[in-house]
Amino acid sequence: MNMTLRKGLVVTLSTIVLTWTTLSSAQALNEQELKTLQQLKQVSLSSDLSYELIESLTTEVGNRMMGTPGDEKSVVWAVEKMKSLGFDKVWTEEVTKTQWLRGDAEANIVAPYPQKMVVIALGGSVGTGEQGLQAEVAHFDTLADLKKAKDGSLKGKIAFVSYRMERHIDGHGYGKAVGTRVNGAAIAAQKGASALIMRSVGTDDNRIAHTGIMRYKKEIKKVPAAAISNPDADLLVNQLKRGKPVSVFLKLTSEIQDDVIVKSSNVIGEFTGSKLPEEIVSIGAHLDSWDVGTGALDDGLGIGMVMAAAHHIGQLPKRPKRTLRVILFAAEEVGLLGAKKYVELHKDNMKNHVIGAEWDFGLGPIYKMKTGVGAESLNAMREFAQLIAPLGVALETTNDARAQSDMGALSDAGMPSVNFSPDGSRYFDYHHTENDTLDKINPKDLKQNTAIYTMFAYFAAQADTDFRK
Amino acid sequence: MNMTLRKGLVVTLSTIVLTWTTLSSAQALNEQELKTLQQLKQVSLSSDLSYELIESLTTEVGNRMMGTPGDEKSVVWAVEKMKSLGFDKVWTEEVTKTQWLRGDAEANIVAPYPQKMVVIALGGSVGTGEQGLQAEVAHFDTLADLKKAKDGSLKGKIAFVSYRMERHIDGHGYGKAVGTRVNGAAIAAQKGASALIMRSVGTDDNRIAHTGIMRYKKEIKKVPAAAISNPDADLLVNQLKRGKPVSVFLKLTSEIQDDVIVKSSNVIGEFTGSKLPEEIVSIGAHLDSWDVGTGALDDGLGIGMVMAAAHHIGQLPKRPKRTLRVILFAAEEVGLLGAKKYVELHKDNMKNHVIGAEWDFGLGPIYKMKTGVGAESLNAMREFAQLIAPLGVALETTNDARAQSDMGALSDAGMPSVNFSPDGSRYFDYHHTENDTLDKINPKDLKQNTAIYTMFAYFAAQADTDFRK
Repeated sequence: MNMTLRKGLVVTLSTIVLTWTTLSSAQALNEQELKTLQQLKQVSLSSDLSYELIESLTTEVGNRMMGTPGDEKSVVWAVEKMKSLGFDKVWTEEVTKTQWLRGDAEANIVAPYPQKMVVIALGGSVGTGEQGLQAEVAHFDTLADLKKAKDGSLKGKIAFVSYRMERHIDGHGYGKAVGTRVNGAAIAAQKGASALIMRSVGTDDNRIAHTGIMRYKKEIKKVPAAAISNPDADLLVNQLKRGKPVSVFLKLTSEIQDDVIVKSSNVIGEFTGSKLPEEIVSIGAHLDSWDVGTGALDDGLGIGMVMAAAHHIGQLPKRPKRTLRVILFAAEEVGLLGAKKYVELHKDNMKNHVIGAEWDFGLGPIYKMKTGVGAESLNAMREFAQLIAPLGVALETTNDARAQSDMGALSDAGMPSVNFSPDGSRYFDYHHTENDTLDKINPKDLKQNTAIYTMFAYFAAQADTDFRK
Repeated sequence: MNMTLRKGLVVTLSTIVLTWTTLSSAQALNEQELKTLQQLKQVSLSSDLSYELIESLTTEVGNRMMGTPGDEKSVVWAVEKMKSLGFDKVWTEEVTKTQWLRGDAEANIVAPYPQKMVVIALGGSVGTGEQGLQAEVAHFDTLADLKKAKDGSLKGKIAFVSYRMERHIDGHGYGKAVGTRVNGAAIAAQKGASALIMRSVGTDDNRIAHTGIMRYKKEIKKVPAAAISNPDADLLVNQLKRGKPVSVFLKLTSEIQDDVIVKSSNVIGEFTGSKLPEEIVSIGAHLDSWDVGTGALDDGLGIGMVMAAAHHIGQLPKRPKRTLRVILFAAEEVGLLGAKKYVELHKDNMKNHVIGAEWDFGLGPIYKMKTGVGAESLNAMREFAQLIAPLGVALETTNDARAQSDMGALSDAGMPSVNFSPDGSRYFDYHHTENDTLDKINPKDLKQNTAIYTMFAYFAAQADTDFRK
């Protein structure tokens, strides 16, 4: 996931209630449907399908940043998998962008105590040229401190922001840390710096740096931007503490190629509704990843979950009432391009997107659900909350949820939405790093996650409720 | 530490007793000395000196493999630190070896599903040449399985051993795993393979590979040897599971330079005994590290502990009876060369090395002490065990300890020895990797460790006991 996900993820614990004491007398599902839902729960808790899908994607495709061969392979992989999983319809919708090449990255402390650092270019950064650049470091504890510097005051220097992301169950430390990654280079350039080096946005202590998208601003010079690992940021801070000037050599051979257009695709599959086929229940994830690790968590996990959930429902003797659509979005990491394209292409039909949810966060068990649905359908959502409560999920009382990540663009376009929150304490240890690999997935937690998405998708597709009202 | 340390580290829990019920009536320390020892305990539990020394070494020197500039700097650093810490004498003793250059390493799965892997050359490996080599992988679960292959049967293949090290408190999983690293290349070559790739000897799930020394055998062709990270070994195994031939490209530009002699030094400092100056109590660690990370744990931790312990004792109004010698050994990682040189240079005086201990294992709290002393002095060691029992240390009843690592060479030469065991559960997550950095050190555990070494050094230097008898 990229930075836009974090909106609205701050938990106010007092707003969570574990049980609901009042229920409408009208049930959203009848007895037979409730029985089917419990069967789906058991199937998804015992099935290894979501894990097998992630294993397949990470083993046979690997990482898949838009513009790389991995991304092209992932589109083929997703289409083939959906077909083999029995989806009624499978198609792709093209997404384009200009190319960015990562190139190589190198960063060394040159003085006073020469040492190599582990560094990665931020996504979208310009390069330094093959010759690299060497400059004294100007150290700032936070982005706010960098902002306070006078314009032009950092001429001939590399700005270094050492703010460390905090670890929280809901991942809200990300929102406080990611501003440097997104906007730091533009602010550093405004102050006159020749480059930005930042402590990685991550909660780990591994000598592995975290990448992620960054943005330049019009009319401000584009300067190179890179992240160093947490231990390297500690080292740089410790050298700075000694009070002598600290010089760093930085080389990034990254390249923005505005004249090269690369293509990818949203991959969409659905099980057609038996009674209300025009009404669409959407579950989604993003197909792309950063070009590091194998994209197992971000967002292989979501891909495995939503494809498995739909397949389990597709195995029922009869299709649910509404159409169940799985959307695997292209180009999330590089700017939610697939989501934007989807909304553009489907804007005239957005009113038929009756409810949706995405999975693009984390590797832990889900502990909370938040709704953003029509007031009249709140009772139905409470009924659903009771059905997943035995899996350890609480319902937040507020009803202003935006779906995660890509699907948030559909929420913004009017789609009723649900947002499931997992224990995200460890997610940012691995996020956007070489360490995002299959071994990080806990199969037990994945089964809980898949069961909840399966139950949600079935409930939403079958319930006698209009979530838009 | 390198592989030789592990001998004798297997714990038989039944041999540990937490308290000793019988004590000799003759006390090794008198009341005043016991009071001094308790004061030293308090000083070392409250002092940050050992941490500050490690911070200084890792920040100002960094990693320090023999033959690199870091190693040369570390010798200067150690001499200066010992002098500034008030040691009575400080000197160096030269150690030489032939040069080995790491060069660069690259390993990719080429088919059936191309993916990059994280790889590191094993210490001492030959290179592949700039062109690299590409070959089908022959997979073996263990070194024993590789041994069973017929000589010459792996012609044109790369041998891959995927055995995974087990996690244990005493680190004994290392002994079961390290054989592949040390001998795997020679065995693979004997079977006809063109290279060895192995799963890293490590307990972590980080996409960081573990290096360490390997050996060739006379009359067997030298083939390149490299370790891939645990997640990459999983990936390779998962591709192999699909039953198609798996090809890997390996490039190592490592180089053995038999005609280039490099120098380093054991750095030795001592506080001269006030009554029995010719009797030497030795505490040691190794000054070199691998050329990855900053050598904070292996063996910066030991360096900080033994230098701080000696300094605390040197701050007493009067020197203890015996000479307290700190030995920082050169070139441990590349074959215990400093230790061998020390024994060679001091063989005529080895009888005056009355007792010694090294620290070259781990980052956890010490939970066990084992002795290897004269039978008559066992009661004194039991008295000492009672003194450190409140810090959570049990005494093993067997009396056949060999000191850790380098100091084991002195044990073999007849020096009475003590071996302190820490909780090593997490040590092999970081061992011989880029992840061996300052942040991994827990200051609280370090204080416990330092207190025990300080108490041991004082007790050994002051006790009315001959540990050789």
